[in-house]
Amino acid sequence: MTGLRLALAQTNPTVGDIAGNAEQIVHAARLAQEAGADLLATGEMALTGYPIEDLAAQPSFLRAATGGVHALAARLADEGLGELPVVIGHPDGPHAPRVLGATNAPTAIAQNCASVLWRGEVRHRYVKHHLPNYGVFDEYRTFIPEDDSLVFEAGGARVALIICEDLWLEDGPVARVRAAAADLLLVINASPFERDKDEVRLPLATRRAADAGVPVAYVNLVGGQDDLVFDGDSFVVAPDGSLLARAPQFVEHLLVVELPGPGGAAPWAQTVASTPAEQPFASMTDGISPLPDDREQLWNALVLGLRDYVEKNRFRSVVLGLSGGIDSAVCAAIAADAIGADRVHGVSMPSRYSSDGSRSDADDLAERIGLHFTTEPIADLVAPFEAQLHLGGLAAENIQARARMMILYAKSNADGHLVLTTGNKTELAVGYSTIYGDSAGGFAPIKDVPKTLVWELARWRNAHAAARGETPPIPENSITKPPSAELRPDQTDQDTLPPYEILDAILDGYVGRRLGREDVIAEGFDAATVDFVAGLVDRSEWKRRQGAIGPKISGMSFGRDRRLPITVRRTN
Amino acid sequence: MTGLRLALAQTNPTVGDIAGNAEQIVHAARLAQEAGADLLATGEMALTGYPIEDLAAQPSFLRAATGGVHALAARLADEGLGELPVVIGHPDGPHAPRVLGATNAPTAIAQNCASVLWRGEVRHRYVKHHLPNYGVFDEYRTFIPEDDSLVFEAGGARVALIICEDLWLEDGPVARVRAAAADLLLVINASPFERDKDEVRLPLATRRAADAGVPVAYVNLVGGQDDLVFDGDSFVVAPDGSLLARAPQFVEHLLVVELPGPGGAAPWAQTVASTPAEQPFASMTDGISPLPDDREQLWNALVLGLRDYVEKNRFRSVVLGLSGGIDSAVCAAIAADAIGADRVHGVSMPSRYSSDGSRSDADDLAERIGLHFTTEPIADLVAPFEAQLHLGGLAAENIQARARMMILYAKSNADGHLVLTTGNKTELAVGYSTIYGDSAGGFAPIKDVPKTLVWELARWRNAHAAARGETPPIPENSITKPPSAELRPDQTDQDTLPPYEILDAILDGYVGRRLGREDVIAEGFDAATVDFVAGLVDRSEWKRRQGAIGPKISGMSFGRDRRLPITVRRTN
Repeated sequence: MTGLRLALAQTNPTVGDIAGNAEQIVHAARLAQEAGADLLATGEMALTGYPIEDLAAQPSFLRAATGGVHALAARLADEGLGELPVVIGHPDGPHAPRVLGATNAPTAIAQNCASVLWRGEVRHRYVKHHLPNYGVFDEYRTFIPEDDSLVFEAGGARVALIICEDLWLEDGPVARVRAAAADLLLVINASPFERDKDEVRLPLATRRAADAGVPVAYVNLVGGQDDLVFDGDSFVVAPDGSLLARAPQFVEHLLVVELPGPGGAAPWAQTVASTPAEQPFASMTDGISPLPDDREQLWNALVLGLRDYVEKNRFRSVVLGLSGGIDSAVCAAIAADAIGADRVHGVSMPSRYSSDGSRSDADDLAERIGLHFTTEPIADLVAPFEAQLHLGGLAAENIQARARMMILYAKSNADGHLVLTTGNKTELAVGYSTIYGDSAGGFAPIKDVPKTLVWELARWRNAHAAARGETPPIPENSITKPPSAELRPDQTDQDTLPPYEILDAILDGYVGRRLGREDVIAEGFDAATVDFVAGLVDRSEWKRRQGAIGPKISGMSFGRDRRLPITVRRTN
Repeated sequence: MTGLRLALAQTNPTVGDIAGNAEQIVHAARLAQEAGADLLATGEMALTGYPIEDLAAQPSFLRAATGGVHALAARLADEGLGELPVVIGHPDGPHAPRVLGATNAPTAIAQNCASVLWRGEVRHRYVKHHLPNYGVFDEYRTFIPEDDSLVFEAGGARVALIICEDLWLEDGPVARVRAAAADLLLVINASPFERDKDEVRLPLATRRAADAGVPVAYVNLVGGQDDLVFDGDSFVVAPDGSLLARAPQFVEHLLVVELPGPGGAAPWAQTVASTPAEQPFASMTDGISPLPDDREQLWNALVLGLRDYVEKNRFRSVVLGLSGGIDSAVCAAIAADAIGADRVHGVSMPSRYSSDGSRSDADDLAERIGLHFTTEPIADLVAPFEAQLHLGGLAAENIQARARMMILYAKSNADGHLVLTTGNKTELAVGYSTIYGDSAGGFAPIKDVPKTLVWELARWRNAHAAARGETPPIPENSITKPPSAELRPDQTDQDTLPPYEILDAILDGYVGRRLGREDVIAEGFDAATVDFVAGLVDRSEWKRRQGAIGPKISGMSFGRDRRLPITVRRTN
C-alpha cells in the first residue's frame, strides 16, 4: 500500500431531500479535493437520509434516488471533482421482490447500497449483507441483501467497503478482507446515538482492525431524524488498536487522514485536516476530537434532536408551558441551546393550585434563559367546565391540563410555533400525565430521559454554565423542590408514585431490560410496588401510542425499540 | 389413509392471557371428543394470542408460555381428553439468539411453534419456516425460523403440519408433503382480515391441495386484537378443488369434518358437525357456511374489532360525540351492533354554528338506535377561551373541537367509558381533523374506512335492517346532506377538500398503492389537485402517529401497514 489520504464526511441529510443531501456531498467533495484527499466517504444513505422506512417500498422514490446517484456522479465531474473517488450511501431499486432462504421478505424491492462515483460514473457498487431488524431497525422489511464483496483501488490502496451492520457480525464480510489483501476496511454507517454506544463501537472496530490486519475507517451520519439522533463520531483505528483520528460528535464534519500504510516509515496515520463544529467543512483542527463526558453527550444529543426536528420541519419557533417544575425548565434550556432563546416562547398557566413558588420559579427560568414569556391564568377557562359538567376528582384535574393544551395550541395556531411536551420517560412509563393535556405536543425533548436523569442533567447544565462564567439556566429551586403536578391542593408526585429513585430502578428492569415482574422482585424490590408499577406500565400503552416522538438516548426508548400490544393480559 | 374425523377450532384468544386461552382450547377439545374427532387443531398462537409483538423478547413471558403448553397437555389428560391429539399454536423459548445466513436477527429468542399434545405430553413439535416481515407483520424481529418438516399420525392418517406463511411460499414445505406420503396438509393460521382476502386464501389453499394431492385443512383465529381482526373462515378444500367445509366468519366456531380419504367409497369429506355463531362449540349446522357479501363482511369486521377492544380491555361502555353527520352515525351504529345500544352513550355538543338539521339528525339517530343521549352545548365553554386568547380563524375552530374532547373525557373519567373517535380514513389521510379535538379517543371504529365507503356501508346497514323488518339505524338525512365540520358559518368539507369521489381515488393511488405523485397524475387526475392532496398527506404524518388505533379492513391501513417518517421532504 502506498499512502492514502482519506476524507470522511459526516453529513446531516434530511430524509427524502435528495437534491439537498447531494448538495452537502458536493460541498464535502470540494473541500476534500482542496485537502488533497485520494478518497471521500460519506455515511450510509447519505443521499436520502436514514431511515427511509417504507419510502423503500415506493418505486417512484427509488427511481428518484437512483437518478440522484447518476446525477451526483455527473455533477461532481462537471464541478471538476471527477478525479476524486466518492463513496456515497443510497437506496437502489426498484428490484423484483425475492424470497430468501428460510425466510421471507416478498415486499422488499430496494437495496441498501454504497456506490463509488468516479469520473462522472458509478464505478463500483456494494450491497449491504447484514440487515438489522431489531431495536429501532426494520431493514429486513425494506431491503434485499446480497453477499458480494467489494474491494476497489483508490490512491494506490486497496479499499474493502462494507455497510454498518456488516461490521458487527462475527461471520460478516470482514473475514474476506484479509483474503482480498485489502489495505483498508471502510465502513459507512447510519448508527444512531444511545448512551454508552461509543463504548461499544470503537472497541468493536478495533477488534475488526486487528482481525483484518488493516485500519478500519468508520464514517457515520450526523443529525436528528424524528426520534433518532445520529452522533457522527467518525474515526479511524489502526490494527494495533491505536485511535488515529476522531471527528467530534453531533456536528457536521470533514475528517482528512493520511494513511501511509504499514510498510512506510511513518506511523499508521496522520491527520491532516479536521474541521470544527462552528464552520462545517471549513478549516482544520487537531485530529482526535475529545469525547465529552456522559452527561454532556446526552445533553448534546437532546439539543441536536430538537434542533433538527425544528429546522428540518421548518418551524420558526417553539412554545411550551412553564410550570416552574424541573421538566419544563430542562426542556426550555434544551430548546434555547438548540435554536436560541429568541425562538423559544414560554407560557406560565397558573391555576388556583399553583404555588407562588411555582410562578416565581417560572419567572426566574424565563429571565435566566431570556426566552419570550407570557402568563395565561386558567381559572376563568376551567370554571365553566366545572360548572356545566359538575366535575370533581380526576376529571377536574384533567380539565386543567387540557385547558393548558388549548392555550398552547391556540398560540401555535396563531404564530406557527411547534408545541413541545415536557413529559419525561418515567412519567410516560407509568402514564402519569393527562392525555390531550400535558402530553400534547409535536415533539417531546425529554421523552427518553428518566426523572432521576432529568435532575442530573439539570445539575450538569447549570455547572457547565457556571464553569464557563455564564448564568446557570435552571433555577435551583426547580431542581430541589418536591415534584408536583399541582392539579389539586398540596399534591406531590409521591402521593401517587413510589420515590423516583425506586421507580426508575424498577422501570429499568421491567422496561429497559424486559424483565418479568418476578425477575424484578428478585432484584430486591418490594413485590407490591413492582406489581403496582408493572400494572401502570401495561395499562398506559394506549397513551404512549398516542404520544409525541422525542429523541432516543437509551438502549430501550419508548417507540420503535419497544413494540407491545395495547390489549394484553400479562401475569408474568 | 383410513377415515379421519378432523375438528378445527377457531378460538378468540386475548394476547398474554395464557390461562384464559387454554380454557378455550380445553372447551373445544371436550366438544371435539364428544363429536368423535380423531384430531383437533387450533389457530397459530392460540395459546397466547397473536401478535405477541415484543413479548417474544421477554424471557419470563416465553417461560410462562412454555409452561402453559405442558400444563395444557396435562390438563387435557386429567379431563379425560388425553387420547385426542390436539394441535396448538404457541411461542417457544427463550432460545439463544442466532444469526441466520445472509441476514441478521440477533435479538430474536422465540420460535413460532405448533405442538401436538397427546396423552398428557408434547408428542410432536413444528417450528414455522417462513416468517412474514411485511405489511402488519414483524416476525423476523421476534422469531427464529427452522426448516424441519413434521408429519405425524392421527386417526390412521398421516398429517403434515405447517404454520400460516409456510403455505404461501411457492418453495415452501408444501413440496415435501407429497414426498412424505402425507394424507392431509394441516395449516394453522393467524391471518388478519382484509377486504377480499378470502378471494386469495381459498384459491391459494386449493392450488396447494392440488399440488400436494391431498386435502388442505386451514384453521384460523377469530377476534379483534388492537388494530387487527382475525376473521376465522376456517375451511377444508379437496385436491380436486371442491370446498368440503367452511366455518363462518367472525365468530368462535368448531368445525368437524370426516375425511375418508381418496381410496374410500365416500367423497373426499363429509361435515359431521359445525357449531353456529350464537352458541360457540355447542351444536351442529350445515358444513359450508355461506360467505356474506363484501359490505356485510366489512361491517362485521368493524363490529368485531370494536367489540373485542371493548371486552378484552374490560370497558363497560363507550361514549362518542354525535354531530348529526355520517361518521358519528355510522360509529354509533357499529357500537350498538358490537356491544348493545344500552352500553353506548352519545353526546350532542352543538355550537352556535351547528344547524338545526344537525341537532335533529343526532336526536333521530339516538332514537333509532336507542342509545343513551345527552346534550352539552359548548358555547359557554368556548367563549372564555375566545375572550382571553383573542381567537379567530383556525384557532377558534380548534377550540370548539377541543372543548368537545374535554366533555367526552370528563364523562369518561366519571363513568369509565371508552371514548370513540369517529374520524374516517380520508380525514386521517389529509389531516382534516383537530388533533386533541375530534381525533381524540381510545379507539377509532372507522379509521380504515374511506369517506365514500362510509356512505356505502351506511346505506348497506340501513337496507340490511329494512330487509329484516328492523328500523334502519342511520337517519337518511345524515347520508344525503353535504358533509360539514360545522366549525364556522356555512362551512362544508368541499370548501377545503376536493370532492370525496376524487379525493378517495387519489388517496387509493398515493397511499393505497404507494404511487408517486407523477404516477397518480398519469392516471388522469389534475396535477394541482394531486400535489395538494399529496402535500396534505405528507404533512399530516405527525397527527396520524398520535392517532387512536382502529380495525384494519384494507390492504393498506394507517398504522403498521404504512410506516413513514414524519420529517421528510418528498418531491416524487
